[in-house]
Amino acid sequence: MTNQGFTIWFTGLSGSGKSTLATYLMPILKERGKNVEILDGDEVRENLSKGLGFSKEDRDTNIRRIGFVANMLARNNCVAITAAISPYREIRDEVRKKTQAAFVEVYVEASLDILEERDTKGLYKKARAGIIKNFTGVSDPYEAPEKPEVVVHTGTESIEQSAAKILAYLETKGLIAPKKVGAKV
Amino acid sequence: MTNQGFTIWFTGLSGSGKSTLATYLMPILKERGKNVEILDGDEVRENLSKGLGFSKEDRDTNIRRIGFVANMLARNNCVAITAAISPYREIRDEVRKKTQAAFVEVYVEASLDILEERDTKGLYKKARAGIIKNFTGVSDPYEAPEKPEVVVHTGTESIEQSAAKILAYLETKGLIAPKKVGAKV
Repeated sequence: MTNQGFTIWFTGLSGSGKSTLATYLMPILKERGKNVEILDGDEVRENLSKGLGFSKEDRDTNIRRIGFVANMLARNNCVAITAAISPYREIRDEVRKKTQAAFVEVYVEASLDILEERDTKGLYKKARAGIIKNFTGVSDPYEAPEKPEVVVHTGTESIEQSAAKILAYLETKGLIAPKKVGAKV
Repeated sequence: MTNQGFTIWFTGLSGSGKSTLATYLMPILKERGKNVEILDGDEVRENLSKGLGFSKEDRDTNIRRIGFVANMLARNNCVAITAAISPYREIRDEVRKKTQAAFVEVYVEASLDILEERDTKGLYKKARAGIIKNFTGVSDPYEAPEKPEVVVHTGTESIEQSAAKILAYLETKGLIAPKKVGAKV
């Protein structure tokens, strides 16, 4: 069981905590005996999608590439964690269908109000000012998943609470071994 | 030991037998307990590099992408077998340097005369007629590796002989377990 690969596909607005959650989960999953790889939106754009922009077509191409690599990892017993906004439902569902291993879609929900208030990277301000075009949630659509495997509310939950929900789901489905007695994670 | 990932990086002219050798090796390596993934030039172009052409710059980008994915697989205990022409030495060496696992470059050598004679896909004929541009070996350069880990001569060796050379190298380096007594592969 513990040798089984799968994909954790995070989706959510910019700044909602996808990469933070991915980075938080990685050592925990390794502790549980898994090989883990994070496919971060920015890293993938640099290495697999340089030249692509943020039009719907280019975003879709980028997401398909992430899905292609995640599937390769997952079918080889690795946990692939993706942390791209992936705003379009149809492409996420297309990737899910093509994946030859368990696919765990995690909707990282946080209200736009909270995210604009935080605005840790100043991106929302730039998007509102029109300096950044095609910004998801401001000038570009975000389509929330209809039936995600897990929903976390990062505007109101702590990272520990959100991570615990995801780990509980993975344990229930037999995708990871239960926490060892006395272990922290 | 047998859980260790690595990259087998085939390089050689079109039609030299890179994909054939990759496909031949895959079940043998699985039999020896490895997870194996083939990154075929054409498949990668379709899924990761659509829109790229065959200029030096575009070829280099394509090879870097293959290297990026192969490294992800190899560092997660998978065997990544790449089967793209990868004509430029500098980029192959760049990929080798970035790879965080053993890197086994296999030069699939066959003379242009033999390959043009065979021309199983009719590509050389089209390249000579100028119908296909930037064709490696005809209208585009091929830079053979200077210190490949293995050289196979597919113009004169059988596929079994070439595969045996590669497997012997992998065994010697402790990258795969030796053949079981009585096993065919």
